[in-house]
Amino acid sequence: MQKTQVDIQDQFWQDYSGLIRNTVIPYQWEALNDRIEGAAPSYAIRNFRIAAGLEEGEFGGWIFQDSDLYKWLEAVAFSLRHHPDPELENIADGAIDLIGQAQHENGYLNTYYTVKEPGKQWTNLHEAHELYCAGHLIEAAVAYYQTTGKSKLLGIARRFTDLIDRMFGTQPDQIRGYCGHQEIELALVKLYEATGEERFLTLSRYFIDERGSKPSYFIEEWERRGKTSIWSEGTPNLEVYQCHLPVREQSVAVGHSVRAVYMYTAMADLARLTDDDELRKACERLWDNTTRKQMYITGGIGSTHLGEAFSFDYDLPNDTVYAETCASIGLIFWARRMLQLEAKSEYADVMERALYNNVLGSMSKDGKHFFYVNPLEVWPEASSKNPDKFHVKPVRQPWFGCSCCPPNVARLLSSLSDYIYDVSDDGSKVYTHLFIGSEIGFETGGCQVVLRQHSELPWNGRIEFSISLSGTAGSAAFELALRIPNWFQDGRPVLKVNGTDLDYPVENGYAKVARSWSDGDTLTWLLPLETKLIAANPQIRADAGKAAIQRGPLVYCVEEADNGLPIASLSLAGEPELTESAAADLLGGCMVVEGNGQVVDESAWTENQPYQPLRKQTRPVRFKAIPYYLWGNRQAGEMNVWLRY
Amino acid sequence: MQKTQVDIQDQFWQDYSGLIRNTVIPYQWEALNDRIEGAAPSYAIRNFRIAAGLEEGEFGGWIFQDSDLYKWLEAVAFSLRHHPDPELENIADGAIDLIGQAQHENGYLNTYYTVKEPGKQWTNLHEAHELYCAGHLIEAAVAYYQTTGKSKLLGIARRFTDLIDRMFGTQPDQIRGYCGHQEIELALVKLYEATGEERFLTLSRYFIDERGSKPSYFIEEWERRGKTSIWSEGTPNLEVYQCHLPVREQSVAVGHSVRAVYMYTAMADLARLTDDDELRKACERLWDNTTRKQMYITGGIGSTHLGEAFSFDYDLPNDTVYAETCASIGLIFWARRMLQLEAKSEYADVMERALYNNVLGSMSKDGKHFFYVNPLEVWPEASSKNPDKFHVKPVRQPWFGCSCCPPNVARLLSSLSDYIYDVSDDGSKVYTHLFIGSEIGFETGGCQVVLRQHSELPWNGRIEFSISLSGTAGSAAFELALRIPNWFQDGRPVLKVNGTDLDYPVENGYAKVARSWSDGDTLTWLLPLETKLIAANPQIRADAGKAAIQRGPLVYCVEEADNGLPIASLSLAGEPELTESAAADLLGGCMVVEGNGQVVDESAWTENQPYQPLRKQTRPVRFKAIPYYLWGNRQAGEMNVWLRY
Repeated sequence: MQKTQVDIQDQFWQDYSGLIRNTVIPYQWEALNDRIEGAAPSYAIRNFRIAAGLEEGEFGGWIFQDSDLYKWLEAVAFSLRHHPDPELENIADGAIDLIGQAQHENGYLNTYYTVKEPGKQWTNLHEAHELYCAGHLIEAAVAYYQTTGKSKLLGIARRFTDLIDRMFGTQPDQIRGYCGHQEIELALVKLYEATGEERFLTLSRYFIDERGSKPSYFIEEWERRGKTSIWSEGTPNLEVYQCHLPVREQSVAVGHSVRAVYMYTAMADLARLTDDDELRKACERLWDNTTRKQMYITGGIGSTHLGEAFSFDYDLPNDTVYAETCASIGLIFWARRMLQLEAKSEYADVMERALYNNVLGSMSKDGKHFFYVNPLEVWPEASSKNPDKFHVKPVRQPWFGCSCCPPNVARLLSSLSDYIYDVSDDGSKVYTHLFIGSEIGFETGGCQVVLRQHSELPWNGRIEFSISLSGTAGSAAFELALRIPNWFQDGRPVLKVNGTDLDYPVENGYAKVARSWSDGDTLTWLLPLETKLIAANPQIRADAGKAAIQRGPLVYCVEEADNGLPIASLSLAGEPELTESAAADLLGGCMVVEGNGQVVDESAWTENQPYQPLRKQTRPVRFKAIPYYLWGNRQAGEMNVWLRY
Repeated sequence: MQKTQVDIQDQFWQDYSGLIRNTVIPYQWEALNDRIEGAAPSYAIRNFRIAAGLEEGEFGGWIFQDSDLYKWLEAVAFSLRHHPDPELENIADGAIDLIGQAQHENGYLNTYYTVKEPGKQWTNLHEAHELYCAGHLIEAAVAYYQTTGKSKLLGIARRFTDLIDRMFGTQPDQIRGYCGHQEIELALVKLYEATGEERFLTLSRYFIDERGSKPSYFIEEWERRGKTSIWSEGTPNLEVYQCHLPVREQSVAVGHSVRAVYMYTAMADLARLTDDDELRKACERLWDNTTRKQMYITGGIGSTHLGEAFSFDYDLPNDTVYAETCASIGLIFWARRMLQLEAKSEYADVMERALYNNVLGSMSKDGKHFFYVNPLEVWPEASSKNPDKFHVKPVRQPWFGCSCCPPNVARLLSSLSDYIYDVSDDGSKVYTHLFIGSEIGFETGGCQVVLRQHSELPWNGRIEFSISLSGTAGSAAFELALRIPNWFQDGRPVLKVNGTDLDYPVENGYAKVARSWSDGDTLTWLLPLETKLIAANPQIRADAGKAAIQRGPLVYCVEEADNGLPIASLSLAGEPELTESAAADLLGGCMVVEGNGQVVDESAWTENQPYQPLRKQTRPVRFKAIPYYLWGNRQAGEMNVWLRY
C-alpha cells in the first residue's frame, strides 16, 4: 500500500476528534496522574516515578498499568499528526523521559516487576502482561516517531525489543513462551514496518506460531511456579488465551475477546506481509465465526463477563452481555488488516458497524465518561440489585480501576484517518472503505492527486468526491473503488461522474470506476438512508421474534427518557410506519426515528397480581428511538435495542 | 386445630409416595453411605462414624452435611406413618444409634466441629450452620417420635436443645446470637407442639426477635474471628441472612431465599401460637411481596444463583433463574403455616402452584435424579458454554455435593397428607385446601366422621366427597369449606350435595357448606379444567409480550423433543386454538396441550448472515406442550415456559 496523507474534514467526526484532542487526552493525562476527583486512581505515572527512583512508594493498580500511559502516548502521537500542539508534545516528551528513566540497563521495562517483584521477571507470562505492555510501548513509540520524528521513545522500545528478541525463541537458551495477553505480535509488525528490520517480523511470527504448541508453555510455567497463579485457579484454561490449539488450526473464536482479536489482527498482518496462505485461511475462518455467529448488531463481541469472553455460536444475550469497548476496537483493528489482505466490503461493513455503534457509544458526549460494557438491554435496577448484571452499568463511569478502554477509544478515534482509504503502491487503485469527509493525497503515474470526500453520514447518504491534480500530467488514470455498504440493500447505488449517471462493475462489494481523471472531476455516490427493521438470525435465541431499528450505519434504541416505563412492555405495531426527523436540540443533534408501537395497558391488570389470564389489552403509542451511540446520556434509565414485533 | 389422621388415596400422588418409599428413600440411604456410583459422595454417615469414634478419617462434605441424614430420617418417619416397614425402621434405628454415639456428654452434636474443629464450637454462627443442623435433628426427632413412639432420637434432640437453651439468650452469660441459616426456629415450634414445653417456643421466639437487632451479632462475631469468614469476603452482608432489620420491621423478601422462607415459616407459627399481631402483619407483608412480586409462575423463588437469592421486585429472569427446589419447599411450609394463621385460598393457591410445578419438576420420573435449580427457559449449550448459566442444568443430576434438595423433596412428599385439610378443634369447620384423593377421620359433636375425597387432579377437575359417620349420633353438623382455586376463573364452581346443585357463600376464597351431614352423604365439586394462556404482570420485564400455558394447577412448557429447534423461534399464533389430549404413553401418561404457533422460516434467511432486513416470514406449526413438571425427562434439550404471542 502507498503511504498517504489523510485529513479528516467532516462535521460529525471532527466533533469527536476535537473532543479527543481538547477533552479526552487532557482528561486522561490528569487521570494517569491521579488528579481526577471521584475517579478510581490510575497510579500509572506514579508507578513510573517509583520505578525511575524519583519517588518512594508501592506499585498501584493492575499489573498491566504501564500500558495505559503507552496507549495515551499513542493517542497523543496520532492527535499531534493532524493538530500540532507544542504544549502537549512537551508533556509527552516529559512522559517519555520518565519512561526512559524507568528502563533497566539491559533494556527491560516494566514498573510492576521493577517496583513490586524484582527478580520475578518472565516467570508468569501466563498472567503478568510483560510482553503485552512491551507491545503497547512499541505501538506508542512507532506512532510518536512517525508523527514527530523524535526517536527517543522508539529507542527505548527497540532496546526492550532487542532484549525480548534475545530472550524469546526456539534456541536452547531462550524462553519458548509467549504472552498471556496478545498485543506484542501486532506491535512488532508495526515496528517492522517503521524500521524495515525483518527480525521484528520474525519475532512476531515466532510468538504467533509458538502459541498453542504442546506441551503448553503456560501449564509448564504454572507447574514451575508451584501451581500458583495471580487470578485463576487450577490449571490454566488455555482457551481463555487462545493457546488451546496452534493458531493455524483455529476456526472458532474462543476465550477472552480482546486477546482474541488482537491476535487475529497480528495474524492478518503476518498473512499479508509474509504471503502466508495458511494463516490467511485461519483468519478467514475466524472472521466468519466471529462476525457471523458471535457479534452483536452493534459490533460488540464477547457474550459473558466471566472471563470477558466469547461463549459460543449464536449466544448473544442482550442483558447479561459483555461487548467490551476494547474488544470492538480490536475488531476494528482486525477488520482493517483483513481489508489490507483483501478488499472485501464485509470487512469494512463490520469496521463501520463497530465504530458507529459499540465504540462511539462507549464514550459520553462530554468525553469524560466511558462504558466498559456495552449492553443492548438495560434495566438500571437490575444492574444495581441483581448480581448477574452488576457488570452492566446504566451510566458511563468517570474512569475505571482497569481502565483499558478509555485510552483505547482515544487512540482509535485520533487515528481514524488511517481507516478510510487504501491506495495501491502505484496509485492505480484507490479504495474508499468509509464515507467520512476527508482529503487524501497520493501519487499515481507521476501525478499528485488530491481526492476530497464530502460526506454527511451518518445523517445523510449523499457522498461527493472531487479530484485535484497537480504535476506534469493533465490527467491521472486510476480506479476508484467505492464500498457498497451492507445497509444499502435496494439494488445498486447511483453513481454519477461529473453529474452523469455511470454504470459500474462491482467486485467484492466495491463499485469500481476506472478512468482517466481530470483535474476538477467530481463523483457523486448516492446512498440514500432508509430506516429499516432488522432481524437476527433465528439461531440467535435472544433476538427471536424481535427487530432492531437501523438507519444507515446507525443502530437505534428506545430509552425510558423518551418512552416511559417499563421499556420492555413496548413492542412494534404490525405497521410501524417509521418516520425520521432531525432533532437539533436532542443530545447535541441527531436524527430520531418514531414509529407505531403498543404497550400493555396496565389498567387492564388486576392490581398487585403477578399472573392472570392473558387479555392482550394494549394501547397504541408512538415511540421514539435514538441512535444507540447516544444512549445513557440523560439519566439512568431503561434502554432496549431489540423490540418485539 | 384438631389432630387428624389423613391417608392419601390418589392415583397421581400415590405414584409419587410409592416412588419416595420404594426408590428415593432407599436410594438416598445409599447416597448418604457413599455407595452411589458416579454421584458426588455425601460423607454424611461417614462423618457420624468418625465423630462417634467408630472410624478414622477426615470430615467430608459441607459444614452442614449432618442435616442430610436428619432430613432423610424425617422422610423415613413420614413414610413409616402410612407404610410400616420394619426393615426400614431398623435401618433408621441404627442411624439413630449412630447419631447418639456422636453426641457429646453435654448434649452437643455436630460432626463438623467434633471431627474438624473441636474447640471452635459456636464461634461462627454466621456461617457454620450448627443451629441449622440442630433444627433438622429436632424435626427428624419429632417426626420419628410421632410415627414410631420411639423416643431415643427425641431424647438426643432434647439434650442438644437443652444445651442450646442454656447457651443462647439475653442473659449476661449467654450468647446473644442466632443462626446464619434459619431452621431451628421452626423446629423448636414443632418440639414445643410435640412436648408441650413452653420454653422451646420461648427459645424460638428469642431467635426470631433477636435477629436483626443492632449492633449486629454477625459483624461483632466476624470481628472476634479476626475478620475471617469461610465463604464470604469482607463484612457479612446482613441482607443475605435476613438480619439487616428486626424481623418485625421487614416487608420485602431479601437475601438467600431458603433462609428467608424457613424464617417466615417460624414467624407464622409464632404469630399463631402466641397470638402476636405484629408478627402476623410482618408475615402478611412478606407474603405479599414474595408471592406477588418475586415468585415465578412455577412457584419458584430466588432470581439469582449468586447467593441463591431474591434480587428485587419483578426481576424474574427465566434463563439465569435460580428457583431452588428447597426454596419452593420452604415456600410450601410457609404457605401451610399462613393457612393455619388464616384460611385464605391464596395461601393454598401458592402451595399448590409450587407443589405441582417447581417441586414435582425437580425430581425425575425414576426418583433418582434431581434439579437443584428449576429454570423456565433452557438452552443446553448455554448451560455448558456460557458461565452465566453453568448453574442451570438441562438434565437432572444423580446427587449433589450440596444435596439439600433431594431429601427435602422426600420429606415433603412423604408428609403430603398434612397439607390437605385443616379441622378446627371442635370439628365444626373442615377446610379442604388441596384436591388430593384422601381420607380424613375427625371428631365433631361426639361423632366420628370419615370424609373421603376422590380426585383425578391434575388431569380432571371433578372432585367427589363422601361422608361416613360412626358413633351414637345419626348426623354430624359441620361446615365443609372447599377452596376455589385461583386457576378456576369462570364464575363459581358448581357444587352438588347428594346430586343436587347447592348455592353457597364464599369466604376468603373458600366455598362454605354448613349443614347437618348424614352417613352416606356425597358432595360433588366441579372444577372443569380449561387450558388457559396466562400473562405476567407488565412490570415483570422478562415475560413482556409472552404468555404461559396453564391447565388447572399445571404450568406447561414446550420442549425441543416435541417441537424441534430453536425452541425460542416458536411463538403463539393469534388464534392458538389450544386443544388437550391424553397421551397415555408419554412420560408415564399425561395430558398434552397442542396449539397453533409459528416459527421463523429459516429458508427465508440468507445463509450464514447474522442480521438482515426483517421479512416476517414464518411458517405455521402445531406445537405440543407438556406439563412443566415432566420437562427434561427425555434428552437434554431446549425448553421454554413463556411463549411470545
